[in-house]
Amino acid sequence: MLMPRLLIAVLVLMASGSSFAQEEKSGDSKSNTMEIAFLLFDNYETLDVFGPVEIFGRLRDLYTLKFYSLDGGPIENRHGVSVLTEKLETASASPYMLLIPGGMGTRKEIDNKMLIGQIKGIADASSYVLTVCTGSALLARSGLLDGRQATSNKRAFSWVESMGPNVVWDKKARWKVDDKYYTSSGVSAGMDMALGFLADRHGIEFARNVAFEIEYNWMEDKDNDSFIAE
Amino acid sequence: MLMPRLLIAVLVLMASGSSFAQEEKSGDSKSNTMEIAFLLFDNYETLDVFGPVEIFGRLRDLYTLKFYSLDGGPIENRHGVSVLTEKLETASASPYMLLIPGGMGTRKEIDNKMLIGQIKGIADASSYVLTVCTGSALLARSGLLDGRQATSNKRAFSWVESMGPNVVWDKKARWKVDDKYYTSSGVSAGMDMALGFLADRHGIEFARNVAFEIEYNWMEDKDNDSFIAE
Repeated sequence: MLMPRLLIAVLVLMASGSSFAQEEKSGDSKSNTMEIAFLLFDNYETLDVFGPVEIFGRLRDLYTLKFYSLDGGPIENRHGVSVLTEKLETASASPYMLLIPGGMGTRKEIDNKMLIGQIKGIADASSYVLTVCTGSALLARSGLLDGRQATSNKRAFSWVESMGPNVVWDKKARWKVDDKYYTSSGVSAGMDMALGFLADRHGIEFARNVAFEIEYNWMEDKDNDSFIAE
Repeated sequence: MLMPRLLIAVLVLMASGSSFAQEEKSGDSKSNTMEIAFLLFDNYETLDVFGPVEIFGRLRDLYTLKFYSLDGGPIENRHGVSVLTEKLETASASPYMLLIPGGMGTRKEIDNKMLIGQIKGIADASSYVLTVCTGSALLARSGLLDGRQATSNKRAFSWVESMGPNVVWDKKARWKVDDKYYTSSGVSAGMDMALGFLADRHGIEFARNVAFEIEYNWMEDKDNDSFIAE
């Protein structure tokens, strides 16, 4: 299979010039798409990352997905998933979106001054910042959520609150939007928020169509999380 | 951070004997858990894998998750996710479960005789085999679904049907169970099936509790897929 594919690549390259070479170099990404930077760290929560990856990743004409960690290299979590990442400092100076997952790893990273500092810098320069679950605690620690409305996983809420005492925390929301900051409740809520983000940018029908394509039962109401714990 | 962690590991090792060494070697896995083997190939669908990973992965007392591919090494998909895998032939001779995702990559792998042969061998020896989306086409190609009831992604249904002419395909099901074979509809349906599998083994309340923990709106009715295309 390798020879014919190489041959096709070379032929298309000859036909379309050097811009194609750039595309090939960065995999499937296209030079006119917007970068979504996923921040990984040890023991991030699997679905916090890969739910939104499924949703944004299939829109290849719009977005290019990149995976970063503080030091680069493979990042593993409790589920045994080892994902290759690039060094965070190599992220483009102002990505379209920074996405910060939650998970048990946030309990350690909350005291990682180097990571929080880089989150602050990149989040500040991004057009949008999305956090899933306890990822909002890391963003809150950077100070960027101060005075803003946000939410988080309801079963870790008091811990998250204590990490951002100046944030206006909303315990009822499935996800919360305040200017360029989107914060969601736990795990699966990240998919609902990702679809909500698409609805805000491209209209509700566009988002519903993506949900339909992945056969996902989208909880469209961002103001009411049906998973609120006692 | 490395020194204290090493020190703790050595101390615990001294206190608990060699079984701990085995655990450490295989990451967080425990020697008395059952192996779930996820089969990856180029351009598998992200959520087909990581939805079930989120569900089974959090049950660390029950399951150990492993990621395999035909040749081992990093496997990348269209969403830019590069996951490290082990060589499929190193999988335990009879894993508890084999999980086969779908995605555009199945169109190529359906003609990969080496891969189909290994799927046949491992699926035959596994206690359970789960397929998500068009993953059922790969399993059907092995012949193991002949005469059995199965389902698949509704928008790729005729292609999947043609890959397993002797399979009793059900176009209405969200997921289908026939003996040890579980096959699901598209993408998110893999999460519904994974929860259904837990319900079959551990009871409905156990499965509902996992769905609650990840704030997932579980579609419990396996017989009726609400995403049937025209």
